[in-house]
Amino acid sequence: MAKPRLKIIPLGGLSEIGKNMMVMEYADDIIVIDAGLMFPDEEMLGVDLVLPDFSYLLENRERIRGIIITHGHEDHVGALPYLLLQLNVPVYSTKLTQGLISVKLKQRRARSETKLKVISPGSGITLGRFKIEFFPVCHSIPDSVGLIIYTPVGTIVHSGDFKLDYTPVDGKPTNLSRLAQLGAQGVLLLLSDSTYAELPGYTPSERVVGENLDRVIAEAPGRVIVTTFSSLVSRIQQVIDSAAKHQRRVFIVGRSMSDTVRMALELGYLNAPDGVLARLDELKGMPHNKIVFVTTGSQGEPTSALVRMANRDHRQVHIARGDTVVISATPIPGNEALVNRTVDNLFKQGAQVFYDRVAQVHVHGHASQEELKLLLNLTKPKFFMPIHGEYRHLTLHAKLAESVGIPKDNILVLEDGDILELSPQAGKITGKVTSGNVYVDGLSGGGIGSVVLRDRRMLSRDGIVMVIIAVNKQTGKLIGRPDIVSRGFVDIREAKDMIEKSRNLVARALDHGRNRPADWGFISTKVKEVLNRFYYEQTKRRPMILPFMVKV
Amino acid sequence: MAKPRLKIIPLGGLSEIGKNMMVMEYADDIIVIDAGLMFPDEEMLGVDLVLPDFSYLLENRERIRGIIITHGHEDHVGALPYLLLQLNVPVYSTKLTQGLISVKLKQRRARSETKLKVISPGSGITLGRFKIEFFPVCHSIPDSVGLIIYTPVGTIVHSGDFKLDYTPVDGKPTNLSRLAQLGAQGVLLLLSDSTYAELPGYTPSERVVGENLDRVIAEAPGRVIVTTFSSLVSRIQQVIDSAAKHQRRVFIVGRSMSDTVRMALELGYLNAPDGVLARLDELKGMPHNKIVFVTTGSQGEPTSALVRMANRDHRQVHIARGDTVVISATPIPGNEALVNRTVDNLFKQGAQVFYDRVAQVHVHGHASQEELKLLLNLTKPKFFMPIHGEYRHLTLHAKLAESVGIPKDNILVLEDGDILELSPQAGKITGKVTSGNVYVDGLSGGGIGSVVLRDRRMLSRDGIVMVIIAVNKQTGKLIGRPDIVSRGFVDIREAKDMIEKSRNLVARALDHGRNRPADWGFISTKVKEVLNRFYYEQTKRRPMILPFMVKV
Repeated sequence: MAKPRLKIIPLGGLSEIGKNMMVMEYADDIIVIDAGLMFPDEEMLGVDLVLPDFSYLLENRERIRGIIITHGHEDHVGALPYLLLQLNVPVYSTKLTQGLISVKLKQRRARSETKLKVISPGSGITLGRFKIEFFPVCHSIPDSVGLIIYTPVGTIVHSGDFKLDYTPVDGKPTNLSRLAQLGAQGVLLLLSDSTYAELPGYTPSERVVGENLDRVIAEAPGRVIVTTFSSLVSRIQQVIDSAAKHQRRVFIVGRSMSDTVRMALELGYLNAPDGVLARLDELKGMPHNKIVFVTTGSQGEPTSALVRMANRDHRQVHIARGDTVVISATPIPGNEALVNRTVDNLFKQGAQVFYDRVAQVHVHGHASQEELKLLLNLTKPKFFMPIHGEYRHLTLHAKLAESVGIPKDNILVLEDGDILELSPQAGKITGKVTSGNVYVDGLSGGGIGSVVLRDRRMLSRDGIVMVIIAVNKQTGKLIGRPDIVSRGFVDIREAKDMIEKSRNLVARALDHGRNRPADWGFISTKVKEVLNRFYYEQTKRRPMILPFMVKV
Repeated sequence: MAKPRLKIIPLGGLSEIGKNMMVMEYADDIIVIDAGLMFPDEEMLGVDLVLPDFSYLLENRERIRGIIITHGHEDHVGALPYLLLQLNVPVYSTKLTQGLISVKLKQRRARSETKLKVISPGSGITLGRFKIEFFPVCHSIPDSVGLIIYTPVGTIVHSGDFKLDYTPVDGKPTNLSRLAQLGAQGVLLLLSDSTYAELPGYTPSERVVGENLDRVIAEAPGRVIVTTFSSLVSRIQQVIDSAAKHQRRVFIVGRSMSDTVRMALELGYLNAPDGVLARLDELKGMPHNKIVFVTTGSQGEPTSALVRMANRDHRQVHIARGDTVVISATPIPGNEALVNRTVDNLFKQGAQVFYDRVAQVHVHGHASQEELKLLLNLTKPKFFMPIHGEYRHLTLHAKLAESVGIPKDNILVLEDGDILELSPQAGKITGKVTSGNVYVDGLSGGGIGSVVLRDRRMLSRDGIVMVIIAVNKQTGKLIGRPDIVSRGFVDIREAKDMIEKSRNLVARALDHGRNRPADWGFISTKVKEVLNRFYYEQTKRRPMILPFMVKV
């Protein structure tokens, strides 16, 4: 019998940034690392979110020993509410991550009997033939971990999402000495975060942001409104600390922000001195220079508290002259226009606005090139596989690994679905499993297929023209002149003549069929052909043309 | 009789970046500065380009003395082919700008009797009561100018698009001493470029890019493919110079690139040593380390030469291992995803890729904050009006002006359409003219209205459901069960049952009307109501619902 092999299969996160998910298997044991979602890009019309394809997991469900989550961001936990509906396996994470998962499961009303198990950084678990140790890393959310995975073939280090902040807000830097120790003992494979492999140098510390935030709050003449990701608990801590220092009170606004803050306070990841946090009903009559709001809306989301405030559409708070707004976040790609519009509106209302392009009020949570090299140097892996990135990020990270001395043949650049088989001597790609994007549209969680998406793309470009052709049920003969309705194609009033002409064209084209039963395939093709040509000549547009037969 | 007043009316460029156009008028004389277009953002579905609203110009056509163009970029000249179809007035520009306008008019086959008049930087013209002097400025295209406009009310300086490059490629820096001289004589109003008012410091010189490009070309083991904007003639010059230095030949690929290069060579804005430029038919057998391509595709345009090369879809050239690609441009907002995909594909083909995030192979053409302050300091204007920018850019530029001592009341932040009336003592906004976006879809140049756009947006989100209801022409009674067709809503095969159910629902809802003539308004509302509710319950989606009555 062949000796079992170690297989590593990325199911997400290597073809696009987001929806991170990876499988490791040895003989009968499978562990899953992360279960994230991705937000749609502009071409995914009407799609609300994108999940990894679960097929491989569902086909091998009886072998899965557990899901390990590295931290609480959507691109690492967001697919859990959907996955746990179909798969009942325990989920392992640190305490804050577990808190965030619980909030999420509750919001989605996902009833699940899944056990959420809490692991402390530094401790470990055994799942089948895998022993997994969690080590703390810095990232833009507290309680993030990387993984040390002891397998029958060798030791694997998985960086999680990380950066090397020597002065983190929560005082817990990435555990470099543990990694150095491992490097000395021998690491077979390093899997490391490539998200910012394009950026030279080092990522600045959170401390820099804290200092800038403090200066803004100290100097603001009136109210200060800070918006950030609700998961960025350390940033919220910085605002609370600075507000306390300058005798201001802090109001938490927006549901997801309130939910997270409440949970983080309960679990001890946020600390507020007595009397600093305030309820919105205490707002009335409070002097403006005693107020800080912490709110959602850092991505310009139209229904967020900040955007409502900027549009004078919020129940309690409107932006006014003298207010200072800090957007302590970077737009996620695709959200730039929304954020720009929000900044413009805030300026129009007379606020002073600080945002990433004009002030360093945000740093991201991923390692830049020098940090990536340091991790490679400390762990000294035999094999290296870049994870978390699009192809160019993975390629650039691979070049970095080469530059610090990893042999080219030992650098493994995979794409989602690839099966990597690893022995102590060699790693090679031996096959592919089903992977890709599963589109979710609507809160129900129903998927949508590529045909629907293709149709939406076509509809969005030049609209639709429907041709309704009435046919006698008994004789199969055409009745009267066809009707034409359009949406999103041309201004119907202005183009009245053209539409009339096109009705006549269709009628004429079908005329010789008038006295014999209509062959629908023929009619449909003919109508599309005639109208495609005519409309393109007239407008240079190519609407979707949809002939429909009514039998009466 | 009231004394005539000087009016300044921005028709574009102040509510969004792009489609720059401004009117200045005094008594019976109007001059127009720039006539640009804007490329659509993601929400403008199926729109090809956006023009300023010409209404005000057309209403006042007999008073227009001329159009002055500051430089040859699309956002300053792109609307000309459309405007000149409706308005016959002379167009004044420098020589290269005129060459680019001619190429554009020819490409669009816009027949026009308009006279294109060439003005040299440093010289001037008189248009009615306006005397206009052109002064050279640095920008990312040669032969750019700013304007000094002598009006009966005072002197106005219009910066055009500019930066202060002390070592420009064409050796023609911005004429600062002329501006200083004017400042000493007294400037009433400065209009200055705000595009990069967010950025602190100075914009780097083109020279930096030249050095980096030269290093890449010197060290490349095989072919080098450089892509940039075809209008960036100075960048193309840098590539030609460096290729000549390293004994490589230069192939120009792509139609718009070839057109521009030919014109720029003819007019003397590009210089190529003998034997450096080559034709594609000379390519065969040439060693790879003797080849440089200059090509279109810097925005990841799907039909561009570079993208075809990356997808093995170009007739003559495919990307291969050993090739070096330089993307010497920044993605225009909205094009990021296309450019990223192109970089990914180039890496997958084995090329080494240099692009803006990993190497300084591009600098933009606009002044940063210190340069803007310098211009304010030199010209010492009484009034200041920021131009070319969205509201936040204008606001930040206004703050810069305040910081160098312009009184707050003399800083005029306008939006498109505002009428600014200016006297030697005061400036105020006294009204508004028609302005805004005119959407052009299709090569024909036909406009599309906001209803069409709204429909496309709705269609793109959740698709469309058509309900076809047959009615007896004579009796007005319903015939049979309604038909339902959908596109872009749900997978039609999977959702067959739901669609059937919804047909029954509609039939039932209309049942009580079956024996009396149908009131269409009632039926239509009822159908929408019933289906909206049902589909939302079933799918959480809200497709456009379009009931249609066929009378037979």
